[in-house]
Amino acid sequence: MTTPTPPADKGPADKAPRTERGRRTLRKLLDAAAIEFGERGFHEASITGITRRAGTALGSFYTYFNSKDEIFRALVDDLSGKVREAARSARQQDLPALETERASLTGFLRFASEHKEIYRIIDECEFVDPDSFRLHYRNTARRIHERLAEGIRKGELREDLGEAHAWAIMGMNVFLGLRYAVWSEDAGAEEVAELANSILREGIAKR
Amino acid sequence: MTTPTPPADKGPADKAPRTERGRRTLRKLLDAAAIEFGERGFHEASITGITRRAGTALGSFYTYFNSKDEIFRALVDDLSGKVREAARSARQQDLPALETERASLTGFLRFASEHKEIYRIIDECEFVDPDSFRLHYRNTARRIHERLAEGIRKGELREDLGEAHAWAIMGMNVFLGLRYAVWSEDAGAEEVAELANSILREGIAKR
Repeated sequence: MTTPTPPADKGPADKAPRTERGRRTLRKLLDAAAIEFGERGFHEASITGITRRAGTALGSFYTYFNSKDEIFRALVDDLSGKVREAARSARQQDLPALETERASLTGFLRFASEHKEIYRIIDECEFVDPDSFRLHYRNTARRIHERLAEGIRKGELREDLGEAHAWAIMGMNVFLGLRYAVWSEDAGAEEVAELANSILREGIAKR
Repeated sequence: MTTPTPPADKGPADKAPRTERGRRTLRKLLDAAAIEFGERGFHEASITGITRRAGTALGSFYTYFNSKDEIFRALVDDLSGKVREAARSARQQDLPALETERASLTGFLRFASEHKEIYRIIDECEFVDPDSFRLHYRNTARRIHERLAEGIRKGELREDLGEAHAWAIMGMNVFLGLRYAVWSEDAGAEEVAELANSILREGIAKR
């Protein structure tokens, strides 16, 4: 381990920023960590690499985190929240259920094309911190499941939809993002979201 | 590196087994590698761990592979082929297009529940050998795309289906496998495949 030893008397509870300046520093550290872990991977990434990218002193790092593992976990939680917000902010209130799915996927695809590093970070999380990996996908599926339940309540969606349908929709969205937002952008977010939405509207059979 | 140095004069072209006994040994090494990499991950896995599990001499390993990287790549190629075969052997010839998708997914889910290590190995491949990772998913999507094209030719599927629909279907299948074949088996392969197939048959809107 090349990681410097942090002060032993600080637990996570001490570490939430109390000032606006502290919040900005924490934000800089997390944004720098996304680049560092995204470009170098967990094992090659270093705390000094993160603080150099963030333009902060090493001491600032230990004000908020005890270790590379700890900022990685915080980053996955942060990115998970950003994915949620990218989908949520892309849709207006009271859209029909199918339009809600379309807007959520469009928002996610746009976010992924601007933050291509999220795939590598979330995927590496399966190995670095399996609990956070599962939590990210369980939470994402739960939100889709809640949207489906709302669509059923409004009488717009099939009444037999459940958790497995939410996982199916999440899988569609994740792989379309990998192919069309991260690997190559040969189709735009709206176009890809429409192709996926057409499956949810009518299936794939000829009418 | 703790890896013993292999004979330098042997290239991959020399290494295909020439006898039935050689094919059995190679099979034992790949099956052992699946367990070793699946349980320990690429970095912790060792060549001696593989040969011990396979019950072969260390020399047998170097008859077929030059390094841990090389057997990992061969294993991903082997597993990719097994996924293809699991889907193919589960479906009869000349099924209707939608039944072909259902049977393929059922076959994949059964395979994944018996070989839970494939997710970890394919996912870790993103970091160990990104080209093989992309090739596995590109090939899988291409096969789904070919099945969709065949369904269009037979007049059973929407004529506008293309590569993105194949990626959407692959994503559904991969995440349903992760959730219902690897993490927990609280729903059977047929049941999960039917839930996914209902999306492809009719979408999720109320009729």
